[in-house]
Amino acid sequence: MMLMKCTNDRAILSSMTTATQPGKRAATRETILEHAYALACSGGVEGLSIGSLAADVGMSKSGVFAHFGSREDLQLAVLDAGAQRFVAGVLEPALKQPRGLPRLRAIVANWFDWAQRFRNGCVLLSAASEYDGRDGALHDAVVAQQAGWRAQLQKAIGQAVEQGHLRADTDGAQLAFEIYALLLALHHDSGLFGHDAARAHASAAFERLWRSWQI
Amino acid sequence: MMLMKCTNDRAILSSMTTATQPGKRAATRETILEHAYALACSGGVEGLSIGSLAADVGMSKSGVFAHFGSREDLQLAVLDAGAQRFVAGVLEPALKQPRGLPRLRAIVANWFDWAQRFRNGCVLLSAASEYDGRDGALHDAVVAQQAGWRAQLQKAIGQAVEQGHLRADTDGAQLAFEIYALLLALHHDSGLFGHDAARAHASAAFERLWRSWQI
Repeated sequence: MMLMKCTNDRAILSSMTTATQPGKRAATRETILEHAYALACSGGVEGLSIGSLAADVGMSKSGVFAHFGSREDLQLAVLDAGAQRFVAGVLEPALKQPRGLPRLRAIVANWFDWAQRFRNGCVLLSAASEYDGRDGALHDAVVAQQAGWRAQLQKAIGQAVEQGHLRADTDGAQLAFEIYALLLALHHDSGLFGHDAARAHASAAFERLWRSWQI
Repeated sequence: MMLMKCTNDRAILSSMTTATQPGKRAATRETILEHAYALACSGGVEGLSIGSLAADVGMSKSGVFAHFGSREDLQLAVLDAGAQRFVAGVLEPALKQPRGLPRLRAIVANWFDWAQRFRNGCVLLSAASEYDGRDGALHDAVVAQQAGWRAQLQKAIGQAVEQGHLRADTDGAQLAFEIYALLLALHHDSGLFGHDAARAHASAAFERLWRSWQI
């Protein structure tokens, strides 16, 4: 699956036509979703409105509603699209690496690149801030996404223990928390102080982190 | 300085009266600011509007504008208030501890409590996400705040080196980045998965972090 660029460059988005055939209907839905994802990159998932999205894709509001029954359905679809793109960009390429520390390092390296690409706003991270204090379907979706990703990290850590690359008494949940912490700081500092300095700090921290679970 | 609670409990806010005396004018400004801060805790600094704030404090929009010349002035004042409260809650009580690791540990302990209190939204952290990818006075204020706090951490780290509590070759910027990373993860996990589990992970990570800069 091709990763969407979260920029103002929308040239890659195909022009809209009235969708009457089944294949075109799916393509139109995908196009709306890509516009919505790009809007959410800068304004957050909570900032999405059917009205401004419709104007952005050159459709009527009822045209958008024909593909997404409600604003919340659209928001959930954007979150899902974000998770699919994250997995396609960060996890899947890493699965080509051998199980254990090589794969764990590849996940982190791909995640670094993700943080660089989305240094001015990541849909999934913004959503965590937007919905952590609320109830409802969006909150539940964000918690499920974040818990799912943490479980993937723990799985990769467990394989590194099995391969003898990390200590047998490695606490997977603890190490996953610390990996996540460094990536949060990379995102944070990249946006505020520039990516290169942030990447240097995060890289140095990771080398110490891996060593501390190997000794 | 008393820390504001970022909750719906606004009973602590004094009732509004028309301010005609100089002291009352300052008090009215402070009351508006406290309401704005509470609104920003849930909706972000970017979500603030003069209209809804005016309704919230029971004033006219022009009454609010008499105290804050523009929406941006109000937003900047809210950011400044947030920073003052953070310093009063996290840094100042720690200054009673001896210089070095005891003071650094006190800063972190107070910051843990701050993360617990504002687990559903911290004005300063939300602002970092809101303004990192933009230009303008609010972006500049957020970068200055974040850089200032990182400098405070580095100062406390430097003192710990001087006192012989941390290794002489401790990289202050690097350790400050790693401290910040763990607090970001504490905020993040507290909001999504509950504070207690997040605090346990962060505490364990800090013990390992301090040790690794002492060996």
